[in-house]
Amino acid sequence: MNSLISISNANKITNPNGDIFKLLSTKDTGFNGFGEAYISLIDYGAVKAWKRHNKMTMNLLVPFGNVAFVFMDLKRNFETLIIGDSNFKRLTVPPGIWFGFKGISNQQNVVINIANFVHDDFEVDRAKVNEFDYDWDKL
Amino acid sequence: MNSLISISNANKITNPNGDIFKLLSTKDTGFNGFGEAYISLIDYGAVKAWKRHNKMTMNLLVPFGNVAFVFMDLKRNFETLIIGDSNFKRLTVPPGIWFGFKGISNQQNVVINIANFVHDDFEVDRAKVNEFDYDWDKL
Repeated sequence: MNSLISISNANKITNPNGDIFKLLSTKDTGFNGFGEAYISLIDYGAVKAWKRHNKMTMNLLVPFGNVAFVFMDLKRNFETLIIGDSNFKRLTVPPGIWFGFKGISNQQNVVINIANFVHDDFEVDRAKVNEFDYDWDKL
Repeated sequence: MNSLISISNANKITNPNGDIFKLLSTKDTGFNGFGEAYISLIDYGAVKAWKRHNKMTMNLLVPFGNVAFVFMDLKRNFETLIIGDSNFKRLTVPPGIWFGFKGISNQQNVVINIANFVHDDFEVDRAKVNEFDYDWDKL
């Protein structure tokens, strides 16, 4: 599977009063306009799946905790990427890809999505967690 | 002092696998373009002050912890606003206002700034924490 997801470095700057985490700027690779930003918490061991955005490009970061994202291509091949405390990266996810995610740290797992499109149900497809043949328990 | 800061409701959506926190959309009052988003942690009892952006409009949220923001007008009057877990709001701060902030929860205090301008030192003025006559210890 050729990855459809681009992975960019994200930057943490140490500060004695509290660190700075750069999330996204218009100068970054993968920036594709701004529509909306939101946080999605994902409890330890919980899964949110499946969803497909048909218009939205997502830029996903996990500043706290660790989260496994699973993406499915048109041939139903899966790609799993883990980002978070231990691997602070930004994932750029173009429209048209089924995805889900699981909280894998026993703490607060925080996903930030900076999207180029305001949430609108008309552009979202949803499927049940067992709709596709992916074993979430192995994560 | 007429407040120069606008305070908007921010929305948390309960979800059994982890809640959703809406941060900012292009449809929100106070949205003024997107340049950059970043997190600034502020330790319990720590102060980051003073700074003035001359171009940037900030949209500030505190999804975790509680943070006191202090703003100073041209007559050196101060306005203090506390947002966070116990008061989930968004502050829109136009350019030209001196500000600082202090972490006031004994936990991780997380500030998210969604700004209309990419960080650039040329548009920032800085002053030492004791430059203006504000008693940070009273917070």
